[in-house]
Amino acid sequence: MKNFVSVKDVKNIDALIQQALDYKQSPLKDQTLGRGKRAGLIFFNPSMRTRLSTQIAAKNLGLDPIVVDVTSDTWSLEFADGAVMNGTTVEHIKDAAPILGSYFDVLCVRSFPKLQSRVDDESEQVMNAFIRYAGVPVVSLESSMLHPLQSLADLITITETFKEKRKPKVVLTWAPHIKPIPACVANSFSEWVTAWGKAEFIIAHPEGYELSTEYTRGAETTRNQAAALDGADFVYVKNWSSVTDYGKILAPHPEWLLTESHLARAPNAKVMHCLPLRRNVELSDSVLDGPRNILTQLAKNRVWSAQSVLAEILKG
Amino acid sequence: MKNFVSVKDVKNIDALIQQALDYKQSPLKDQTLGRGKRAGLIFFNPSMRTRLSTQIAAKNLGLDPIVVDVTSDTWSLEFADGAVMNGTTVEHIKDAAPILGSYFDVLCVRSFPKLQSRVDDESEQVMNAFIRYAGVPVVSLESSMLHPLQSLADLITITETFKEKRKPKVVLTWAPHIKPIPACVANSFSEWVTAWGKAEFIIAHPEGYELSTEYTRGAETTRNQAAALDGADFVYVKNWSSVTDYGKILAPHPEWLLTESHLARAPNAKVMHCLPLRRNVELSDSVLDGPRNILTQLAKNRVWSAQSVLAEILKG
Amino acid sequence: MKNFVSVKDVKNIDALIQQALDYKQSPLKDQTLGRGKRAGLIFFNPSMRTRLSTQIAAKNLGLDPIVVDVTSDTWSLEFADGAVMNGTTVEHIKDAAPILGSYFDVLCVRSFPKLQSRVDDESEQVMNAFIRYAGVPVVSLESSMLHPLQSLADLITITETFKEKRKPKVVLTWAPHIKPIPACVANSFSEWVTAWGKAEFIIAHPEGYELSTEYTRGAETTRNQAAALDGADFVYVKNWSSVTDYGKILAPHPEWLLTESHLARAPNAKVMHCLPLRRNVELSDSVLDGPRNILTQLAKNRVWSAQSVLAEILKG
Repeated sequence: MKNFVSVKDVKNIDALIQQALDYKQSPLKDQTLGRGKRAGLIFFNPSMRTRLSTQIAAKNLGLDPIVVDVTSDTWSLEFADGAVMNGTTVEHIKDAAPILGSYFDVLCVRSFPKLQSRVDDESEQVMNAFIRYAGVPVVSLESSMLHPLQSLADLITITETFKEKRKPKVVLTWAPHIKPIPACVANSFSEWVTAWGKAEFIIAHPEGYELSTEYTRGAETTRNQAAALDGADFVYVKNWSSVTDYGKILAPHPEWLLTESHLARAPNAKVMHCLPLRRNVELSDSVLDGPRNILTQLAKNRVWSAQSVLAEILKG
Repeated sequence: MKNFVSVKDVKNIDALIQQALDYKQSPLKDQTLGRGKRAGLIFFNPSMRTRLSTQIAAKNLGLDPIVVDVTSDTWSLEFADGAVMNGTTVEHIKDAAPILGSYFDVLCVRSFPKLQSRVDDESEQVMNAFIRYAGVPVVSLESSMLHPLQSLADLITITETFKEKRKPKVVLTWAPHIKPIPACVANSFSEWVTAWGKAEFIIAHPEGYELSTEYTRGAETTRNQAAALDGADFVYVKNWSSVTDYGKILAPHPEWLLTESHLARAPNAKVMHCLPLRRNVELSDSVLDGPRNILTQLAKNRVWSAQSVLAEILKG
Repeated sequence: MKNFVSVKDVKNIDALIQQALDYKQSPLKDQTLGRGKRAGLIFFNPSMRTRLSTQIAAKNLGLDPIVVDVTSDTWSLEFADGAVMNGTTVEHIKDAAPILGSYFDVLCVRSFPKLQSRVDDESEQVMNAFIRYAGVPVVSLESSMLHPLQSLADLITITETFKEKRKPKVVLTWAPHIKPIPACVANSFSEWVTAWGKAEFIIAHPEGYELSTEYTRGAETTRNQAAALDGADFVYVKNWSSVTDYGKILAPHPEWLLTESHLARAPNAKVMHCLPLRRNVELSDSVLDGPRNILTQLAKNRVWSAQSVLAEILKG
């Protein structure tokens, strides 16, 4: 694997999942794979689970992770070709990326969208500039539009949890939030589940929250949350701000807060969320404090997700 | 040892001290004890000595420490049961702690008091929530009311320094400060020295600075600093704000600044402080620049204090 | 080597360069030199390349680096003898430095000048206080007046790049900038090149930007940039604010922005800069996007520069 920024970089999703589950059984079985190599973890935005799980995954492979928090290092990058840099940017990505690439064997980069311009965010300026200029493999730790390490952990979790012969019914259901949230996790989950093809997949959201068809092609979409949840095996709960009215919260829709009563006709449904989550805004205590909650299992699977991807990157 | 948040978690104080002194002689003698294990060092407040000494202690045991600075990660936790999280908190401790627990074999947590409500601070909300929800051992790196790794280092220092057959006379003397300071170090020192029982222990402070008897039971208390210091072997200098008029500075009391003249009748007294300290406000240059100063020795003993505790935690 | 804060600490510059080039060939050949030892990397100012290259260099020697970002740790140090610390400083360097020295086998310290008083900055208060009080070797990661690890990397780069028998012509040319920038890199480069003695060295700058002769003694100085650049083999481009009118930008001098047309009579000149750099303010895209640019090579050589110095420090 050369880079990992989307499911399109993956040749065999099931093999990547199986390798992750193998690492879950034997975390240190490939301790020599990364020996003498270094991963730079470049965070343009804060992180807790992604940072920790990627650090642990790297160490499990004998790969030395070094974290760079760019905000706290007061390092504002320029991305525009030909820019006369007499403003606030202090260094051009053309100069910075090859040096980071010279220090590390792989660069893992997090860069959130600004949610101001859909065109700008869809251009994936930061991730693409690192891929273009760094000279070493680039792994997304969440980009403007996608969060592939999360989505791989999602599929790992579904795979290890669901043991029936039929396809599981997987529902992505929009949830309320008080702030405009990027659609990365929803985009990426949709892209991975449809590419995987091993689930009956439905996306439920209120009017105005349509995701880009670039990521949802092949998925059923509905505004009828109740019908979507009927008989669900996995319910992925997630807020996102409007894509068509870009970055906006259109209406609060408190009725989309997922409670036990929403799940009356899905007695075996497990509930997933990428975290952090706002209790009793997105998901009710009644759901979270009961047996449907597989959030800790899912968050721990971020380690094996990152480890499986970094192993593929190290293998080249 | 299951958790380490107070002297009450310790079965045998002298054994813990002796183990620390053994590590001081042979820092790497238990390098396999933590092999393949990880400690999460979660700082809700800044730290210098505690962070460094705990990192070094963990590494000496082969335990991999990963530091998480929560402030810089902009991660505001919710602790209230049933909270509708439509405000500033972004994640509930019920969801966050088990995940951190799944990433680490031990969680070391620092969380200062807010000094606004005595009841709130005494509830030790943060430390207790981690103990309740993390699912792994919790070590205090200083909590609202106590600083047990500091107190253990204090006793290590007294033990290795005092070689006479009699009990040493140990004085905890209040010192001036320009800001309201928590009573953690004073509470914790009092709790440990009285539980240890191997010192003649006196606490001296001006009126209004009485510590909670929960921590000082068994200690002599006085407002007569001169009498307390008479013949002292160890003088622990420390400011704390009022406990009864909670979090307040009642009066400046510059005469409590400890100088050489205060120690005229304690010619062999060694002076201790947990640091950081304000020179010529808490302690005079004359004391600090002379042979009574054992602050570097004490601060270095923080390594062996943390190492001895982490070893007990790893042994289970 | 006891400390490394200036070229004056170096007995044999060429041997230090050669050792760096040996490490470039075999980064891990001295993995046992630092085994069981620790380096504290204390940053009073932000850093990217210096931090990463020093971390990597230390690890290559088996030396464990621990980074301390002082700003984010909100730790304001007092340096004045006899200070009554009732203001904003929370700890005296006399108390802090020996403790850091007790935790680490070597302290690497970055501390920028304030650019308010030439006398204050030239006193190198922070670096000298660490040397005086830490009790262990001190390595400068850039001080008020000098940046010796950068200068050593500069000479490593010139040495490995220039293969002719004659002395290379090396030009340090002032460049415009929008903010007042310290003269550290220019001072240090001048000090090292003149001490090295193996280059024909010219410094070109506009009126009012004279460097202190303490660092430039033995170098030719001119205001005629064109003449200086004529036939140059290496052109070091760098802004600095006025030394004589201390810390000021006297005039913008946009004509000093280095472009290809400036280099018409230096067809083989390689261009160097310590980074970060502002494109089309200091150096033009035309120069940077062409074959003269050896910035990535130079920045990567920071690793071998730091590794060679740390090795000398570890050898004592």
